[in-house]
Amino acid sequence: MDWVYIEDIAAHDGRDVEIRGWVYNKRSSGKVRFLLVRDGTGLLQATAFSADKDSPLFQQFDRLTQESSLVVRGRVREDGRAPGGFELSMTELEIVQIAQDYPITLKEHSTPFLMEHRHLWLRSSKQHAVLRVRAEVIKAVRDFFDGRGFRLMDTPILTPSACEGTTTLFETEYFDQKAYLSQSGQLYNEATAMAFGKVYCFGPTFRAEKSKTRRHLIEFWMVEPEVAFATLQDIIGLGEDLILFIMERVLTKRRHELETLERDPKPLEAIKTPFPRLTYDEAVPVLREKGSTIEWGGDFGAPEETIISELYTSPVCVTHFPAAIKAFYMQPAPENPDVVLGVDFLASEGYGEVIGGGQRIHDLALLEKRLEEHKLPREAYEWYLDLRKYGSVPHSGFGMGIERMVSWICGIKHIRETIPFPRLLYRIYP
Amino acid sequence: MDWVYIEDIAAHDGRDVEIRGWVYNKRSSGKVRFLLVRDGTGLLQATAFSADKDSPLFQQFDRLTQESSLVVRGRVREDGRAPGGFELSMTELEIVQIAQDYPITLKEHSTPFLMEHRHLWLRSSKQHAVLRVRAEVIKAVRDFFDGRGFRLMDTPILTPSACEGTTTLFETEYFDQKAYLSQSGQLYNEATAMAFGKVYCFGPTFRAEKSKTRRHLIEFWMVEPEVAFATLQDIIGLGEDLILFIMERVLTKRRHELETLERDPKPLEAIKTPFPRLTYDEAVPVLREKGSTIEWGGDFGAPEETIISELYTSPVCVTHFPAAIKAFYMQPAPENPDVVLGVDFLASEGYGEVIGGGQRIHDLALLEKRLEEHKLPREAYEWYLDLRKYGSVPHSGFGMGIERMVSWICGIKHIRETIPFPRLLYRIYP
Repeated sequence: MDWVYIEDIAAHDGRDVEIRGWVYNKRSSGKVRFLLVRDGTGLLQATAFSADKDSPLFQQFDRLTQESSLVVRGRVREDGRAPGGFELSMTELEIVQIAQDYPITLKEHSTPFLMEHRHLWLRSSKQHAVLRVRAEVIKAVRDFFDGRGFRLMDTPILTPSACEGTTTLFETEYFDQKAYLSQSGQLYNEATAMAFGKVYCFGPTFRAEKSKTRRHLIEFWMVEPEVAFATLQDIIGLGEDLILFIMERVLTKRRHELETLERDPKPLEAIKTPFPRLTYDEAVPVLREKGSTIEWGGDFGAPEETIISELYTSPVCVTHFPAAIKAFYMQPAPENPDVVLGVDFLASEGYGEVIGGGQRIHDLALLEKRLEEHKLPREAYEWYLDLRKYGSVPHSGFGMGIERMVSWICGIKHIRETIPFPRLLYRIYP
Repeated sequence: MDWVYIEDIAAHDGRDVEIRGWVYNKRSSGKVRFLLVRDGTGLLQATAFSADKDSPLFQQFDRLTQESSLVVRGRVREDGRAPGGFELSMTELEIVQIAQDYPITLKEHSTPFLMEHRHLWLRSSKQHAVLRVRAEVIKAVRDFFDGRGFRLMDTPILTPSACEGTTTLFETEYFDQKAYLSQSGQLYNEATAMAFGKVYCFGPTFRAEKSKTRRHLIEFWMVEPEVAFATLQDIIGLGEDLILFIMERVLTKRRHELETLERDPKPLEAIKTPFPRLTYDEAVPVLREKGSTIEWGGDFGAPEETIISELYTSPVCVTHFPAAIKAFYMQPAPENPDVVLGVDFLASEGYGEVIGGGQRIHDLALLEKRLEEHKLPREAYEWYLDLRKYGSVPHSGFGMGIERMVSWICGIKHIRETIPFPRLLYRIYP
């Protein structure tokens, strides 16, 4: 008898199969026993009928507890009433292990308790749905870039220098010197973009930030494309296309998961390109009118991002931020060098920044000046300066945080549920 | 005029296009100028003809140096003699930047020099080819697992405990405690496999090993599948299918790169499943006969791996290693508990281990005993033990090192060329 996965069950209608999984739920009704089995790919109702309540199969059934592991065998048959449209007429039930007192029950549990049991919480239907959406988002991202001829170039995690300041870096001993965990693959992307034209990196990044918010993880995944010869406008278009591609994919392939999460898909379906665009100069008076105390030159916080994003149904692209609040490598705007050719994409519904990027300085003298102004050690950046010596070209790119995207798509309030094992301030277990 | 990439040039035959890139090479012949342009996606010959050697276009041409950046415009036309089958009849040549004294010339450079200029070395045709193969291998791996219903579950890099001992771990301060960089996502995979049935993680891993070999990187990428209810034999089959899938993909899509690398494809084409299998007990006398001094109980080193792999044309699966030389979580063989249900896949042609894995202990009491024997702190593993309390099932998985695979496929001797920015003993720049 073939071992099959529940997600493939429709292909086995009318056939005898074996399902291996865990007890999700069970109930009895007279001479019928209903077992809801999960195998990680779906849920299947397995039913057994007997006039004898002490039949061997019923005896086995009665021993089962939540999350006990088992193998069931029987015939697949279509049944419109069953969840998923199919059920199993169970003829054999083999217990692998009886789970004693599974800690996560149907009652409410506190968040600290659930986080402490994250390794088990993952089995719950909502967490399961979120992480399936996450996997789909990641696949969509890779398909998008691979399909457009971007070359994947993995950038290093262990780096000798900081991309955007040193205060939030994890440090480690690298044999005879210090190393830091990467906060961005961008500088390396710039080197590979000059070799491959259009590239992306996609890996974990780290920020040792001592802040506790709903939007930050200590360890998170980021995809970063970089394109030689691309301008700010080019990569705004790229970011729009990427977001739209992800939305269409998830709305097509993970609609069931969005339902499980009770996520209204309408705001996601409403997203259209081109996205509204707003310069920082235009945004400040709007923010102040809506009650923000921001002054020109100040950075956006979560409240400012929320105000802006709630004005539109699509994500908003805010551009031309003050140079002083942005990273050293950002290209000044030709018409006003006090602002830079950078862009932040603010997700709809108040979910905040999901993409940040822009055009990079390609002029050697200007970049050298910026390194000095930011008091960055030139020797660590010699290789980066080389990119401006040997065939320098205008180039642009951005970073998109995966967990922010998943949080927004799933409509969940706290980013900690968007990664299997979140790393939070003071939390590194399990 | 449309900006197009060289890899898409065939679709623009007969049309006027713009190419943006860098000077790969140039030569003159009478009234003709030949410019070999690279744009990261390919090489294109751009030719200009003029009776006037001081024509503006020729003047521009004469200024060009290796790796100068430029924009050229002209008409695409098919030409069997040109590399790639097409050339550009150049009508405009716009210089973006003249590269002065590009350090990597056609002469031989020392490896330390090239490693110090890795950010530029990436532009060379061999390095370019290796990294395109790498990207293809990674895409093949993801397509393989996604296509088989495996769920991608990113496991954390920052971990509170060691998977396989603490001597080779990078350590960092995680707020008020110590954290280590992950050497494997396996333990976390076991948790997600119980939630999702079949999973994989794929990310960077770290070994602070003070050894200098051709086969080791300090930071490398590893894909690790884990399957609930799978036995050792099941995952040997999975590993065979994976390797074959990768080979077929690369041989189809990256044949040109293998040619650039002068890699004979025949040994890769000769690989067939099932792979030869050999128990450790069977391997030891063979090794001794071939000159190894290994005793029963000793681990294989590079020389032993080479001897075994050279006996076969396909990779070899060595199974049933002594428990004492393997990790604490490995399931003992039922017929002999001194050996474990583990497997190493040794690549052909002496490339050594590319996959290591096996069946994991699913019995709680046995796992507790192993933790004690290995003097591992139980409190750090409480969550891992939970997986044996709540619906424990037999399960298996493996890890495949991407750089080892790429090294083998490309037929290159040193693993340092298989990743954009290798991290080696004492080397973390650029």
